[in-house]
Amino acid sequence: MSVLTAPTTALHPDRLLPFERELRPIARRLYEQVQHLPILSPHGHVDARLLVDDEPFADPTSLLLTPDHYVTRLLHASGVALDELGVGQGPLAEDAARRAWRHLCEHWAVFRGTPVRYWLESELAEVFGIEAQPGPATADAIFDRISACLREPQFRPRALFRRFGIEVMATTDDPTDDLAAHLILSADPTFEGRVLPTFRPDRYLESGRSAWVDDVTRLGATAGVDTGTYAGWVLAMEQRREHFRAHGAVSADHSHEDVGTAALDAADAERLYARAVRREIDPAGATALRRHMLLEMARMSVDDGLTMTLHPGVRRGHHGPTLSRFGPDTGHDIPLRGSFTDELRPLFERYGTHPNLRLVLFTLDESTFSRELAPLAGFYPSVYVGAPWWFLDAPDAVRRWRSAVTETAGLSRTSGFIDDTRALCSIPARHDMARRLDAGYLARLVAEHRLREDEAAEAIVDLVDGRPREVFRL
Amino acid sequence: MSVLTAPTTALHPDRLLPFERELRPIARRLYEQVQHLPILSPHGHVDARLLVDDEPFADPTSLLLTPDHYVTRLLHASGVALDELGVGQGPLAEDAARRAWRHLCEHWAVFRGTPVRYWLESELAEVFGIEAQPGPATADAIFDRISACLREPQFRPRALFRRFGIEVMATTDDPTDDLAAHLILSADPTFEGRVLPTFRPDRYLESGRSAWVDDVTRLGATAGVDTGTYAGWVLAMEQRREHFRAHGAVSADHSHEDVGTAALDAADAERLYARAVRREIDPAGATALRRHMLLEMARMSVDDGLTMTLHPGVRRGHHGPTLSRFGPDTGHDIPLRGSFTDELRPLFERYGTHPNLRLVLFTLDESTFSRELAPLAGFYPSVYVGAPWWFLDAPDAVRRWRSAVTETAGLSRTSGFIDDTRALCSIPARHDMARRLDAGYLARLVAEHRLREDEAAEAIVDLVDGRPREVFRL
Amino acid sequence: MSVLTAPTTALHPDRLLPFERELRPIARRLYEQVQHLPILSPHGHVDARLLVDDEPFADPTSLLLTPDHYVTRLLHASGVALDELGVGQGPLAEDAARRAWRHLCEHWAVFRGTPVRYWLESELAEVFGIEAQPGPATADAIFDRISACLREPQFRPRALFRRFGIEVMATTDDPTDDLAAHLILSADPTFEGRVLPTFRPDRYLESGRSAWVDDVTRLGATAGVDTGTYAGWVLAMEQRREHFRAHGAVSADHSHEDVGTAALDAADAERLYARAVRREIDPAGATALRRHMLLEMARMSVDDGLTMTLHPGVRRGHHGPTLSRFGPDTGHDIPLRGSFTDELRPLFERYGTHPNLRLVLFTLDESTFSRELAPLAGFYPSVYVGAPWWFLDAPDAVRRWRSAVTETAGLSRTSGFIDDTRALCSIPARHDMARRLDAGYLARLVAEHRLREDEAAEAIVDLVDGRPREVFRL
Repeated sequence: MSVLTAPTTALHPDRLLPFERELRPIARRLYEQVQHLPILSPHGHVDARLLVDDEPFADPTSLLLTPDHYVTRLLHASGVALDELGVGQGPLAEDAARRAWRHLCEHWAVFRGTPVRYWLESELAEVFGIEAQPGPATADAIFDRISACLREPQFRPRALFRRFGIEVMATTDDPTDDLAAHLILSADPTFEGRVLPTFRPDRYLESGRSAWVDDVTRLGATAGVDTGTYAGWVLAMEQRREHFRAHGAVSADHSHEDVGTAALDAADAERLYARAVRREIDPAGATALRRHMLLEMARMSVDDGLTMTLHPGVRRGHHGPTLSRFGPDTGHDIPLRGSFTDELRPLFERYGTHPNLRLVLFTLDESTFSRELAPLAGFYPSVYVGAPWWFLDAPDAVRRWRSAVTETAGLSRTSGFIDDTRALCSIPARHDMARRLDAGYLARLVAEHRLREDEAAEAIVDLVDGRPREVFRL
Repeated sequence: MSVLTAPTTALHPDRLLPFERELRPIARRLYEQVQHLPILSPHGHVDARLLVDDEPFADPTSLLLTPDHYVTRLLHASGVALDELGVGQGPLAEDAARRAWRHLCEHWAVFRGTPVRYWLESELAEVFGIEAQPGPATADAIFDRISACLREPQFRPRALFRRFGIEVMATTDDPTDDLAAHLILSADPTFEGRVLPTFRPDRYLESGRSAWVDDVTRLGATAGVDTGTYAGWVLAMEQRREHFRAHGAVSADHSHEDVGTAALDAADAERLYARAVRREIDPAGATALRRHMLLEMARMSVDDGLTMTLHPGVRRGHHGPTLSRFGPDTGHDIPLRGSFTDELRPLFERYGTHPNLRLVLFTLDESTFSRELAPLAGFYPSVYVGAPWWFLDAPDAVRRWRSAVTETAGLSRTSGFIDDTRALCSIPARHDMARRLDAGYLARLVAEHRLREDEAAEAIVDLVDGRPREVFRL
Repeated sequence: MSVLTAPTTALHPDRLLPFERELRPIARRLYEQVQHLPILSPHGHVDARLLVDDEPFADPTSLLLTPDHYVTRLLHASGVALDELGVGQGPLAEDAARRAWRHLCEHWAVFRGTPVRYWLESELAEVFGIEAQPGPATADAIFDRISACLREPQFRPRALFRRFGIEVMATTDDPTDDLAAHLILSADPTFEGRVLPTFRPDRYLESGRSAWVDDVTRLGATAGVDTGTYAGWVLAMEQRREHFRAHGAVSADHSHEDVGTAALDAADAERLYARAVRREIDPAGATALRRHMLLEMARMSVDDGLTMTLHPGVRRGHHGPTLSRFGPDTGHDIPLRGSFTDELRPLFERYGTHPNLRLVLFTLDESTFSRELAPLAGFYPSVYVGAPWWFLDAPDAVRRWRSAVTETAGLSRTSGFIDDTRALCSIPARHDMARRLDAGYLARLVAEHRLREDEAAEAIVDLVDGRPREVFRL
């Protein structure tokens, strides 16, 4: 297996730390403060049932490649069809899995300079002990090595969860979910982690969708409430949020085209809702209703204390033919221009200074970092600037974000790192990356005499540990 | 008073200079070229009466904390109510002032990485000789030390003005101001500085405001002109500008939601104006009238030579409840997306190449730096890119600005530094910061062999001294 | 001629490479991999007839100054009238040329920090052996030295083309051009370069223009097709594209205010077209027709394999009086806010995954780098992110672009460098600049342990040579 000893970059102890000799020693010392702290992951997409079942992962491809649109998208752009990667096909036969894996390895060069490469190399090295770089010559050997690992008990989901040092991990769940998996985990004395559900009600706020009527009917059935009226919808939401809270949820997550909020008076809300129930609402009406509903969700967050997180500004399923064939989350969600100032004003007028509200704002539009997010978080006690998300969860983007946000909002008005991942094995690499980048950022402040090193050491612990605990009330 | 000797970062001689050893010596030499040049402050918000009265400052809180929304906003975001900080309450009793000061010191960590921290530490060190870092343990001692200083004659406004090396300082004034304070100062042989008024007519251009009719009536009374017609409004504006010019004004400053300019024909302007006088103008009409008026103000700048400065794109008083209770400028003005290209086209078609016009464009939307501001200033001889303003007046933002603007517009098409501050004591720290950052930027050009060091030395003197003198005809 | 020996920065061997000692040796090694590779210039504005005629260039001013709006614009901003620079006047008398040249040299300081200075100094040094810095004292000597050079055979266009190592150079041509010049060059056994036409049909898509009817009539006459109907317009376009392809064209270039695409049904397209032919189309109709036509052009690119390049988002001829007097391309085209996600969706729904399509997206709005361009190129196999263009073709902007694009789209989904220049002599300096900047970017990835140096060496060769060959099918 000598091909597996070809060099990679993943395990250099100083990776991602500043290369400058004036900064590196400072950054190293700061990184050491947080390197081994437990992982707090208050927003992500791993399935709780994975940990309930604790079955071995099937194969390297379904573990690391097929379900991860960060990986498949760039392969698709490079000419590999999604079905060649197993996307949308359910469990893969071994030869299909191996063929997909070879595509990944043969196209390794297209990931140069991307965080996907960094994460995957870190996972191969740190989880599976593989230091060889993926490529045509190493594809099969790496596939076999991971496959062999996956048959060992220490590579089952719970064992990895423990080994990764995850203290808290949030999942993302539909309001109608019974959260049985979360209940089992919290009741299991042999499982020491906290796995928390997250309330994600987007579909129930989009009344122009063709499936909306069925969705809210199911929501009503789950809550034991008639959702034929807006008042019923509100009641059902409140009841399901309470169910989530009772099962450990700490936040509600919302992702719509924009973050517009605007109150309707009660009669108008009922009228629009009734129209939607009759499948007669027009796009403008659906948008107005959604903006009213989002304001209602903020009100509920004030009442029940679930931290409200907003992930707006993406055109989901940009390529219709791919969406039809392979389903959502297959790599062609494309960001839109964003804005927050006027859109959120009605929300802030009502709840912006309410001591119960915690609101985390994420963006994919970097122009909002210094223009809107930092100024909002620099005044409203309810607002935190969300960590760089999705396309922006990458070294240079994280640096731009810290640089753009900190001077107006400081360090304390940020959310702490959010991995937002579907890939369990990528969690430690992602958190470690964030810690290294924060160490580098703070080291620069120290070297420019803007911060003392003892303050920076205190600050980095707060970023890694203090922020998520405060923002998500962990 | 040993707590006052705990270390800070503020006084390191190389603070904010590049940390890289390849750059630092170059940057030091460049900085030395301008370190001691007199301060030219052609736009700011210090009150001229402060220097007329020359009374001792009341206490540290009303000097450094309460009136400065840069400081109070982040404390507010961190959970300190504005009334705890004395905002909107007039003069503070000593115990209230001390209590507010303690809030500041106890929350010192929230300012990490912000320019507020940098400015305040610089002021404490350089103005008051305090090198201790604010904190719970040092709060009272620092308060007492500053209080003691403030009773000394060398800490009165005029003495500080002299000690700071301020050659020119502009204030910001309402068109109806009689400018008596400026007259007193210019007539006083014992006061050697130049304190210039700035014509700021925003409120008179916003005809949809409820107080607009009263405002233009008062404007008319002041000018001795009937402002019942648009023609009268124009005449009144011209007369007040002449009054300002006679009292030393060099610029007129304008801040509206956008920089839209669009000519109305004379009859339409009168018609809209008449509707506004009857309090019947609708929002679209008010906007149309404002855009016509802004074009008229450009015409006046061409005629009378007042440099026109534009500070657009802020939603003022974003949080209604705070605005009602504490008034404007209390930390919740939030920027909006900006654009200039089409908005200013009517202005440029008419006056863009007129030799009399000087137009300085500021922005809070960084996406306009390279997209619009630099291309405009790189063609129109009337246009200068304004220094980074407000939220962007901070080390990393200044660096992004220089990087984004210079490659298209060069160095000479920028405005020179503008401190825009209400805080007299922060003026030297702010100008010094800008000089250090320019030294660092130019040092990089030298180290990359894009500029010779002797050229960089000439350039930095021009940025600090030449630009403001040319742009504002000082 | 001792004044010509005063120092400049242009020839330092490490210019534009990273100044940091940790990076510079790596960057040097990477740069050496590509320093001498042939130049591939798949998009530019040099006239093919220049090489057919191979006449000596008239004088330094008409070679380097007058036709280059990068140069004239900043002189204009600095107070030099365009007619003083010979703009819009045709051939210049020697004294007028010399006077214009003196303006350039006397204003040399205004170019500090701009790429214009870098390019011109590189050209003076590398093409003409002049190392003196332009200035009042050197203006005449430099003028005379270049003039003397231009009389020598080795400074004729073909000799320079050869000396510059240009393998491929694309021109930009009207669809009605007979391309005789290209035919002559390709048939000439003594001319070894490839000079390829580019199909640039913008004016024929803008049916609201007053000259549009005449233009499409001429187009029809050239194609031998009646363009009185939309179907005829399509046929004429197809025929002219085929003519271009037969003469070596590899791409079609499009520049409109936005990149909106939207299909009309056939009857509506004919109806709008007919209205335009009658000169009765309104602006909304003209826009709708243009967006349909742009979609049609994408369909043609799928069919005939011409790479489609989009250069949107500029307000052309921003200053009407200058446009009237001096014509287009005289320095006052000003960028607009841009977006791509929704605008191009109809195009992508139809052709985004078609294996025949190559689509290169350029922007002047940096906020689209990470928000839209990289995500699109990171999924659609047809899309490449165009190199930084126009105002953004400058060292710091290129660095921002690589940093913003690579983490999402990798290196392989970018277009390779595009010089886009009218100035033959600037081609080598521009390509060399891009190579140095890529070397610096990749060196940082290596120093941060994100890429191995052998991979970086492979990558830089691919960026310089592989990308343009693939993207433009060279």
